[in-house]
Amino acid sequence: MAIFLRSSEADFEARFAALLAAKREVSEDVERAVRTIVDDVRSRGDAALAEYTGRYDRNPTPPGGFRVGEEEIEAAFRAADPQTVKALEFARARIHAHHSRQKPQDDRYTDALGIELGSVWTAISAVGIYVPGGTASYPSSVLMNAVPAKVAGVERLVMVVPAPDGRLNPLVLAAARIAGVDEIYKVGGAQAIAALAYGTGTIAPVFKIVGPGNAYVAAAKRQVFGTVGIDMIAGPSEVLVVADGRNDPDWLAADLLAQAEHDTAAQSILITDDATLADEVAEAVERQLIHLPRQETARASWTDFGAIIVVDELRQALPLIDRIAAEHLELAVDDPEALLKDIRNAGAVFLGRHTPEVIGDYVGGSNHVLPTARSARFSSGLSVLDFMKRTSLLRCSPEGLRELAPAAIRLAEAEGLAAHARSVGIRLNL
Amino acid sequence: MAIFLRSSEADFEARFAALLAAKREVSEDVERAVRTIVDDVRSRGDAALAEYTGRYDRNPTPPGGFRVGEEEIEAAFRAADPQTVKALEFARARIHAHHSRQKPQDDRYTDALGIELGSVWTAISAVGIYVPGGTASYPSSVLMNAVPAKVAGVERLVMVVPAPDGRLNPLVLAAARIAGVDEIYKVGGAQAIAALAYGTGTIAPVFKIVGPGNAYVAAAKRQVFGTVGIDMIAGPSEVLVVADGRNDPDWLAADLLAQAEHDTAAQSILITDDATLADEVAEAVERQLIHLPRQETARASWTDFGAIIVVDELRQALPLIDRIAAEHLELAVDDPEALLKDIRNAGAVFLGRHTPEVIGDYVGGSNHVLPTARSARFSSGLSVLDFMKRTSLLRCSPEGLRELAPAAIRLAEAEGLAAHARSVGIRLNL
Repeated sequence: MAIFLRSSEADFEARFAALLAAKREVSEDVERAVRTIVDDVRSRGDAALAEYTGRYDRNPTPPGGFRVGEEEIEAAFRAADPQTVKALEFARARIHAHHSRQKPQDDRYTDALGIELGSVWTAISAVGIYVPGGTASYPSSVLMNAVPAKVAGVERLVMVVPAPDGRLNPLVLAAARIAGVDEIYKVGGAQAIAALAYGTGTIAPVFKIVGPGNAYVAAAKRQVFGTVGIDMIAGPSEVLVVADGRNDPDWLAADLLAQAEHDTAAQSILITDDATLADEVAEAVERQLIHLPRQETARASWTDFGAIIVVDELRQALPLIDRIAAEHLELAVDDPEALLKDIRNAGAVFLGRHTPEVIGDYVGGSNHVLPTARSARFSSGLSVLDFMKRTSLLRCSPEGLRELAPAAIRLAEAEGLAAHARSVGIRLNL
Repeated sequence: MAIFLRSSEADFEARFAALLAAKREVSEDVERAVRTIVDDVRSRGDAALAEYTGRYDRNPTPPGGFRVGEEEIEAAFRAADPQTVKALEFARARIHAHHSRQKPQDDRYTDALGIELGSVWTAISAVGIYVPGGTASYPSSVLMNAVPAKVAGVERLVMVVPAPDGRLNPLVLAAARIAGVDEIYKVGGAQAIAALAYGTGTIAPVFKIVGPGNAYVAAAKRQVFGTVGIDMIAGPSEVLVVADGRNDPDWLAADLLAQAEHDTAAQSILITDDATLADEVAEAVERQLIHLPRQETARASWTDFGAIIVVDELRQALPLIDRIAAEHLELAVDDPEALLKDIRNAGAVFLGRHTPEVIGDYVGGSNHVLPTARSARFSSGLSVLDFMKRTSLLRCSPEGLRELAPAAIRLAEAEGLAAHARSVGIRLNL
């Protein structure tokens, strides 16, 4: 059973702070092991990559190499359940439509002093997507990472995915094809990240790497950060459901459990102003748990990290919502907009009683790669902007330069940078 | 003397690749030392911060604490050279005007299936700015980091700056006041980064930390990444000047040296299609070097990392430009737009012969915090977006949910997530 807090109790602040501070992930100390792998792949390339893949994935390199051939992708696509393929195509179209609205506009203008300024956006030329193997190998995540990259205009989109014992989830290949991924390699772990960052004989380097992975993958991404760009390091998933008393407890319990079934480190929190509903949801969770195929995972998550918080009135939830800064926030109330306008920190908000978070996982159209572990305080979900970069432009006429020169020279001199001052002054015979 | 390459020579590709691969920074292995400092400040707070500040900055904590008081800021402002203060105010106004155009628009809409979607932007509530001490303590950098944060709407903008032997550059305080910084603390190094990330008794934690620093600061930022957001790790600065034969070699030499005087690890590169100009610029550099106060630094940079590349025609420069992916790119040609449209990777481009890069350092209006060390291939200069975050919104009516449900349930089942499927199905009695 999850913990139960009431905002009216004397020790609420201490217990709420403890809930926020709870460390949900055991951070394995893999730093040194990963450093060795990354350095090895960097210096020995394909030979090292083949060794690690053989060792960790029990997948010796086939004669054709790591690359997944067109026939294998085609075969996976044909073998996949047609209804599931249709669902992936439906999801892709919705994700594409939503993300197309995120494309930034170039901005060029001339200001009052006659100086031309600008910001122009270009796609990153080559991007790598990491897809985990095994149970966390989700075709939906392939779409969520790849579609925005293609909307941005990334020319070379490279997917790496480990194939433990040589096996790949065919739906992952189907999703990659639907999303327009350009190259797929059956490699994973820190060795795949190193291959993407530094390149090997068979895998040309990329400039940015995105996608979730285990502790080794996360450590490798940290280590190559700077050589390439990376996305946020994803932590375990979480949902915060804010509900008034006019909800079906079974619906809310289902939403809490959808989060909990992901991972024993996932977190599901309910905040309500109705103590009776709180009890009913707790009961419904227990009732539904029994029937879940992933009961063990969901029960561990709910027991260890689940929480039900009863507040006197829903407005009291607002500061708690901002402090939790949840990856997913459901507002199961009559007027969610009234709460929304005062909420600052959340990765994605699901408004009203008929918008379960799961819709956003698959077919809402918005991205399901969202900031976890309270990082919605300072970061955003994946978007088209993550696959583009902005160049700033500046152009002075001789007259414009004359307007700006005195202040520039003054500041250069104040900073002790004489060559800076000279670079401006020499053009004006100053 | 810098290296000299000709694109027509047989070994050009090898030598150009070596130029790109050259490691300009000795990466000190400070990881472990920094880990100790960060952990110590995290667990002991102000006491640890005071000890490290006393030890590294030789600056014992005054009775009033680390915080710089209003009187000290006021006094610095009054003591500063009035012309320099005016120049800072001029720069601030231009930076403010340019960055105000970067504020993203919220986007809310209803699609053809009746699903409401949205992306809404909010400012990060609390941000820390690191300002280096000593010679690299630039007031212009204070403006470049602080003004976009304030344009974004950051409520609590906290600056940390080491005061070696208790001394602070008064212009840094003046710039902070002009930019609207809310709190200033005289602390620096890894201990200041830890204080900002975890908070101490006197410094409340922030959610993101930006600004350049030495190897200790960079390592500390890497270590706290995840707990807080960070900006790119800045490397040594660089300029690439692309010039046709119709340039004054002295102007170009001045631009190359403006970069070189920053740091012995800075890099200045000239690409031209005119071999005579190439020689003239090389001579002009030597001539100007003698008169520079920072001759020693500039000479080391130019000798170790400077390069002059002669190409047969300027269009040949395009692939080189994209591979160098310079922080600063000057196009000293008649028609810079003709080149610009085919350039993909550059932090900032300075168009035409009358736009020395230095203008962008101070008063152009665009940001001078730009991607270094070839990272313009995947990242952008500092902008208002770095101080904001996006929340996505989703709202389904009962009818809308019915439209999306079948695909969502199909994908959830394909991924083996029964509780996901149930969370959608339960709302439709499926």
